[in-house]
Amino acid sequence: MKALVYTGPKSMAYQDAATPQPSDEVAIVKVHSVGICGSDMHGYLGHDDRRPAPLILGHEAAGVVTSGPMTGKRVTVNPMVTCLECEACQEGRPNICPNRQLLSMPPREGAFAEFLEIPARNLTEIPDDMSFDHAALAEPIAVCWHSVRLGIAALSRPLDKCRALVIGGGAIGVGSALCLKAQGLKAVDVAEPNQRRADVVASIGDFNVIDPINDSLADSTYDLVIDAVGYGGTRASASATVKPGGVIVHIGLGDSGEGFDVRRATLQEITFIGTYTYTDQDFADTVAGIGSGLFGSLDWAEVRPLSEGAAAFSDILSGAVAAPKIILHP
Amino acid sequence: MKALVYTGPKSMAYQDAATPQPSDEVAIVKVHSVGICGSDMHGYLGHDDRRPAPLILGHEAAGVVTSGPMTGKRVTVNPMVTCLECEACQEGRPNICPNRQLLSMPPREGAFAEFLEIPARNLTEIPDDMSFDHAALAEPIAVCWHSVRLGIAALSRPLDKCRALVIGGGAIGVGSALCLKAQGLKAVDVAEPNQRRADVVASIGDFNVIDPINDSLADSTYDLVIDAVGYGGTRASASATVKPGGVIVHIGLGDSGEGFDVRRATLQEITFIGTYTYTDQDFADTVAGIGSGLFGSLDWAEVRPLSEGAAAFSDILSGAVAAPKIILHP
Repeated sequence: MKALVYTGPKSMAYQDAATPQPSDEVAIVKVHSVGICGSDMHGYLGHDDRRPAPLILGHEAAGVVTSGPMTGKRVTVNPMVTCLECEACQEGRPNICPNRQLLSMPPREGAFAEFLEIPARNLTEIPDDMSFDHAALAEPIAVCWHSVRLGIAALSRPLDKCRALVIGGGAIGVGSALCLKAQGLKAVDVAEPNQRRADVVASIGDFNVIDPINDSLADSTYDLVIDAVGYGGTRASASATVKPGGVIVHIGLGDSGEGFDVRRATLQEITFIGTYTYTDQDFADTVAGIGSGLFGSLDWAEVRPLSEGAAAFSDILSGAVAAPKIILHP
Repeated sequence: MKALVYTGPKSMAYQDAATPQPSDEVAIVKVHSVGICGSDMHGYLGHDDRRPAPLILGHEAAGVVTSGPMTGKRVTVNPMVTCLECEACQEGRPNICPNRQLLSMPPREGAFAEFLEIPARNLTEIPDDMSFDHAALAEPIAVCWHSVRLGIAALSRPLDKCRALVIGGGAIGVGSALCLKAQGLKAVDVAEPNQRRADVVASIGDFNVIDPINDSLADSTYDLVIDAVGYGGTRASASATVKPGGVIVHIGLGDSGEGFDVRRATLQEITFIGTYTYTDQDFADTVAGIGSGLFGSLDWAEVRPLSEGAAAFSDILSGAVAAPKIILHP
């Protein structure tokens, strides 16, 4: 089969790769749509030691099953394979399963390919009227759904009084803003410095989009701040803009260092919640929400052929992509 | 009156000070017992710009009212004076009132003195059989009660399965361990590097006391970690020892910098809760708990005369004090 293979920092090659074979453990899915995630970008840049080259990246996939009892079913893929047996799995938090594996991290190849292999239990059938492009958004939106759910659970004020800020207008930022609206927040601001992308974000939903470079963010303003970027600078912004008693949800994995203001967090009783992926219920709720139109039209992804995936990565890196998401078609 | 006045970094003087006068706004309390807090130590060291010299420090006080309708009542003092009118006060979170004032921060002088002034609403009458020394512990234990309450609320597992670590064996550490037990945790470890203090802590309650220098703390072990110190090193320990999906409660104000591992927090879904003081309900619950023996005998404070307070501060600084708390008697 053809696959887009990460061959080293800033290097992606569209080339032949071994076609995965069905077994008792895995079903095969012919990939129709697969999104490029920020974590794929970290891998591409050589910044993620969990993703060593050579490796097929990609974990946001939808397609058609070609093996086993589900053959012919249109599905979206939960790329996180958990052990089902540990304490975390048993207690309904498979996202912190210590044995978890993710498509696009060894030993599992990713989804930037014509076919992928995954346990059948990770496949969710989608309705006939749900496009593969929308179904491929289930994974990133489930990340947002989960994060927003945890953030809201930590708020002490009535939701209709709460104001939220999302830092970052990529897919996780947009998805978080959509999930905040879907879960009951009325006032949602999104900070996005790239003006072309900001214009796109403003057109997607009922958000107030702020340019954090030219229009400084207001301090002590937000009950809930979602950092969908995760660099020192964005954590510093989150620390400053959250209200006393408020909540910061940290999804981004930009870097590992500074930014979070522990002194202000302590004196002003601020909660910082690190969030990672989703539970099975979050994933199911998200797929249902996509089907019911809960997140709007979802027509904000840009589609390109997988064969031109290398250019998509370099375009994202250079800031030339206005869309919050690029979806590749093998 | 006589007072212990902070006159500059590492300098305390027992000297004459203006005796506070009753008014419509404040009652006068003759101080019988007043504890030395870690934040008094930060002030004493010149590390807290909220406490400029010259200033009477101290905010953990109990005594007898000498003015107004409560004259003659034995009371413990809630040292936090809030506005009652802001959003935070109205929503039951007076501890994050933006207008809050604290005894020992300008414009309010502290309690290391023969008399203090405070609004009568901040006074809680204590039973005849509660000693002033025990009543003076209400304030620091209320801090712990509040922190433990918030930490437990963020846990997702049944309490009887949860294991907790308290970092630091000072009064906030000991109080946190006692409150963890009182609120339902069964397995509580306390990390305290000072061997003399560790021995005292081990004698106070059913805690396992660990020497974090010679016996390294186990990684990924605790559902709940309470950092009652708040330095970079203790935040790093908290980040490493908390389990995936666990909770760090940060009470200490040691320093403002590094230590919290945001990458691990994100990948392992760890929550960091900054906590500050207490609500009125926390304070009332704590006074009731002291009265009912919920926290044990509470005979672990060392008592010294206020006139020798300067030596008490230098002894604490040099590590010569084994007791988790020194209480001064004017």
